Amino acid sequence: MNNSHFSDCAQACIHCSLACTTCASACLKEQHLEMMRECIQRCLDCADICQLCARMEQKQSPFRQEMCALCAKACDYCAEECGKHQDEHCQRCAEACRQCAQECRKMAA
Amino acid sequence: MNNSHFSDCAQACIHCSLACTTCASACLKEQHLEMMRECIQRCLDCADICQLCARMEQKQSPFRQEMCALCAKACDYCAEECGKHQDEHCQRCAEACRQCAQECRKMAA
Amino acid sequence: MNNSHFSDCAQACIHCSLACTTCASACLKEQHLEMMRECIQRCLDCADICQLCARMEQKQSPFRQEMCALCAKACDYCAEECGKHQDEHCQRCAEACRQCAQECRKMAA
Amino acid sequence: MNNSHFSDCAQACIHCSLACTTCASACLKEQHLEMMRECIQRCLDCADICQLCARMEQKQSPFRQEMCALCAKACDYCAEECGKHQDEHCQRCAEACRQCAQECRKMAA
Repeated sequence: MNNSHFSDCAQACIHCSLACTTCASACLKEQHLEMMRECIQRCLDCADICQLCARMEQKQSPFRQEMCALCAKACDYCAEECGKHQDEHCQRCAEACRQCAQECRKMAA
Repeated sequence: MNNSHFSDCAQACIHCSLACTTCASACLKEQHLEMMRECIQRCLDCADICQLCARMEQKQSPFRQEMCALCAKACDYCAEECGKHQDEHCQRCAEACRQCAQECRKMAA
Repeated sequence: MNNSHFSDCAQACIHCSLACTTCASACLKEQHLEMMRECIQRCLDCADICQLCARMEQKQSPFRQEMCALCAKACDYCAEECGKHQDEHCQRCAEACRQCAQECRKMAA
Repeated sequence: MNNSHFSDCAQACIHCSLACTTCASACLKEQHLEMMRECIQRCLDCADICQLCARMEQKQSPFRQEMCALCAKACDYCAEECGKHQDEHCQRCAEACRQCAQECRKMAA
């Protein structure tokens, strides 16, 4: 995949959206499901917000900066929870959220 | 359809999202397409934002108030442009946007 | 909300999409979470598919019949699982899925 | 962006979804807008379908194969129209659609 035509922010958002979808889906199959309630909720929210943010960024929507500001918060919130869990999908999701929050903050500035 | 289990805000968002989708789609078929560029762009943005806002409202996302604040702005922006055109789909969309902006502002407060 | 400008199928899809979102979200807060894994997964899938189906129906996409056929299957699958649980959100979701499957099958025919 | 944890199909779908969004948005700004009606409509449809397909693929939805089959058709349909236009965004979109159709057909098989 040649991503060179998408902004760093759009790419980070898409990466994060898919990582969150993966994490929520994997959490729903874990034995320790009881511990993952909060993680699943935050991942689902973050996946949706990042998905829309990537699209708005890509089409240069006049609301993209406000969306990026909101997306950065959703990413922080998700990373905070995912970062507590040792599952590989959680660690990977937390890392994607941190990168996405960083790119979104640059864009929102 | 019994909508009684959905909040007024979620219903207004969904109504507006579908009205915007309808309007953008109808604009693309108009003879006076040249005049509708801005209307189409704003409707597409507003349709996506309202759709996500309805979902976040429905699941009581911790970010729903911020999303509602953004949604209200996108609705105002779309209503401003749609309101200029006499086409029935534009007038109907502008009205849906105004109602949605009002409900979203109540929720964001 | 005046829904008279949306087709019965688009309305049933939107209703079902929000009912599935509500159900998945409520399941994640239930004490008997362990029993709800499958329900949550099916609801999340169905919510996304119904949401897109409503939009495609609304803009009269050339792929709306195929989307309706797929949506009907996703609704059946979700209703099958939700229908097993006595929680009010599950019963309501199962009912919304059944109605949506019916409308989608009419449209796909 | 490290994409190695996403399937080739999910990546192709996301790439195509963003390329379609970019193309529709750029078409709306072209002087020769009149010629681009069909292109915009097909790109918007394809962007939405690819976006959902990527997500369903990523979470291994039981409906992912049917969604991939539908997505491949939407990609073909979009590539057919975009391929007629010399604008760089159209050519790039047509290419993304062809690659996505190929990956989706492998997955649907």
